[in-house]
Amino acid sequence: MRAEIISIGTELLLGQIANSNAKYLGEECASLGINVYFQTVVGDNLNRIKEAFQIAKNRANLIICTGGLGPTQDDITKDALGEFTNRKLTIHQPTLEKIRGFFTASGSQMVKSNERQAHLLEGAYPLTNEVGLAIGLALTDNGTNYILLPGPPGELKPMFERYVIPWLNSLIPENTSLFSKTLRYAGIIESELENRLSEIIEKQQDPTIALYAKVGEVSVRLTTRASSKEKAKSKIDEVEQKIRERTAEFIYADEDISIELAIYKLLKEKGVTLSVVESCTGGLLSHLITSIPGSSSVFQGGVVCYTNELKHKFSDIPLNMLNEKGSPGAVSAETAELLASNVRKSTNSDYCLSITGVAGPAESEGKPVGLVYIGLAVRGQVTKVINVHFPGNRNIVQLRAAKYALFFLYQSLLK
Amino acid sequence: MRAEIISIGTELLLGQIANSNAKYLGEECASLGINVYFQTVVGDNLNRIKEAFQIAKNRANLIICTGGLGPTQDDITKDALGEFTNRKLTIHQPTLEKIRGFFTASGSQMVKSNERQAHLLEGAYPLTNEVGLAIGLALTDNGTNYILLPGPPGELKPMFERYVIPWLNSLIPENTSLFSKTLRYAGIIESELENRLSEIIEKQQDPTIALYAKVGEVSVRLTTRASSKEKAKSKIDEVEQKIRERTAEFIYADEDISIELAIYKLLKEKGVTLSVVESCTGGLLSHLITSIPGSSSVFQGGVVCYTNELKHKFSDIPLNMLNEKGSPGAVSAETAELLASNVRKSTNSDYCLSITGVAGPAESEGKPVGLVYIGLAVRGQVTKVINVHFPGNRNIVQLRAAKYALFFLYQSLLK
Repeated sequence: MRAEIISIGTELLLGQIANSNAKYLGEECASLGINVYFQTVVGDNLNRIKEAFQIAKNRANLIICTGGLGPTQDDITKDALGEFTNRKLTIHQPTLEKIRGFFTASGSQMVKSNERQAHLLEGAYPLTNEVGLAIGLALTDNGTNYILLPGPPGELKPMFERYVIPWLNSLIPENTSLFSKTLRYAGIIESELENRLSEIIEKQQDPTIALYAKVGEVSVRLTTRASSKEKAKSKIDEVEQKIRERTAEFIYADEDISIELAIYKLLKEKGVTLSVVESCTGGLLSHLITSIPGSSSVFQGGVVCYTNELKHKFSDIPLNMLNEKGSPGAVSAETAELLASNVRKSTNSDYCLSITGVAGPAESEGKPVGLVYIGLAVRGQVTKVINVHFPGNRNIVQLRAAKYALFFLYQSLLK
Repeated sequence: MRAEIISIGTELLLGQIANSNAKYLGEECASLGINVYFQTVVGDNLNRIKEAFQIAKNRANLIICTGGLGPTQDDITKDALGEFTNRKLTIHQPTLEKIRGFFTASGSQMVKSNERQAHLLEGAYPLTNEVGLAIGLALTDNGTNYILLPGPPGELKPMFERYVIPWLNSLIPENTSLFSKTLRYAGIIESELENRLSEIIEKQQDPTIALYAKVGEVSVRLTTRASSKEKAKSKIDEVEQKIRERTAEFIYADEDISIELAIYKLLKEKGVTLSVVESCTGGLLSHLITSIPGSSSVFQGGVVCYTNELKHKFSDIPLNMLNEKGSPGAVSAETAELLASNVRKSTNSDYCLSITGVAGPAESEGKPVGLVYIGLAVRGQVTKVINVHFPGNRNIVQLRAAKYALFFLYQSLLK
């Protein structure tokens, strides 16, 4: 299959946002064994979108579009494809009901243009949007396959993973079905992981090995084609074994889930509770955990103590210990230990994670940007502290520290 | 002038790197008043690069290419343009000397392929590379202007700023410089804002009006061309005035900044401090504020009280008030008020924002998903509470609630 990615949105042409969707879809297509020879970006202009369809159709049999599915006058991707393929717009009733429900619940007025998010095309297969309101669609027209996806990455990715991949697999002959497995890593810097796996990656043939690095987390995806799941499994197992020999200690999941979701599942399974106390991560650790639906059953909450006064007030740490310059100071193993121990006790939770460090932009207490102490208090156990020096700017240090702390907790929960 | 950006490199198609050059060039062209209607990405393949030139030439008179100027076999952009325009490759002697000097200085062997970085085309204008070895070029051929730039952003940007802009300005008539102004909104649902502005947007001519919606925040950008800043300002002022008449109460900035940055600036300016206490947003509000460098000078921290026990423990709210089903309960005006008042007192901060609500996935205390109470305690003032019903799923409700709370604070800080 030969694909072309068309990203639709004037904001992309103006450089107001980066085209992260094209990067994501490029990676996905590569791992699905689909060749992409061109990407195109076009603005919110009906004739130019149709021109992009025409050019793409001449050189590809799969056209994946992003953007232009929203309710505004600029959102015309479905109109353009309808005109281009000579198909009428239809209404996807379940989506229309969902949109109405949202407006009823919010007590605000649904305007006519909101209906546009429920548009489909004659003969198209609807792609469920689990996050937002606009329905996506897949359509085969005269031998060309079209997929229309929403622009916001948070809506596009779940739609692609849950609905587009199965639809694409249905187009591929059965004896070449695609199978893949993802290993998820945390607690290791991306370049270090790549280093450990470089020899295996260089020699890769079948399965293919793709490494996707995000800040603080990495996925390694193995992909192969085979006539049965069993044959695929045996091919993947062999390479997975080699990968695990070099990196097992940093793997937290063999499916594509975040470290915070892995933590939630473990806490739930063990029937234990968690609290947190954060200084340099400023609420990010709490936010990651509470982004998981259902987290209120295991997560009690915590404290963001950005100043020494609040560390004293909410975590019972002596002020003179915090205010002594450098020794031990707010950024220290001693502070991380007391934060975790005292907040665990005051919240009466089973586990408590603490983070204190220097996120930047400037050093603090004579300690460098990126130095972070992570404490973990467990009911009935001695509190443990580790320290790590993270590379990166403020936001990256914060994210690395939060993800690393979650991995530290994960290891403890496994024991 | 009408431009097309062609990014050359198989690594872009595979999604191994993001196309940050296209974003950069899009911004630069917009600010130079050059229209960009399409961007194309193509791999390191001679025929496909020539195909991209052919398509771009039919719809643009300025073609800006990035990538493929290096010494390897994959670097064929100059070869492709040479074949396409029927021009011979030549050698730029100063660059060849520079390359030789580089290899002599480093004590390593210069191989024949390194000469490729000194290639020019007959009739082309050389673009100096101050950072790397590969020379760029600008060429006018049969009324079409071509610019070839290196792929590494660190080489591309100085070349563009120092050599391409002057070359482009020599092509542009003096009286068409571009000016723009951005208004930022919060505290209003995106579709509601668009509704209020729909008449103005439909009738837009000059300046153009573009609306960019994110969850919880919206930008409106006015853009015009004029021969001077003063003339542009008077055109923009007229439309801005009409926009403000309909929406002034939701504008928090007339520059492109987030609401949390606007809050930080106001707190800093007034010399006051902030704390927060969050239930359903679970740390997101703290996280947004502490993502701003320097926020530790105004933000003290706060409490994430996900359970009723922690609301009681850290915010002194009577447990029986929280545990009464529904009335008032944890999700109530009474709780939002006490959370803000008590945490403001215990942290001794000037302002304290509280959020309690139902983020979902399920209703709570018989209250629906999306219902959120926001409290604001101010030193020496009566605590205020508002409630809002936000549409969207869990993560969207959390983000809308946090942004709305920040806007509520913003309004109070203005008084």
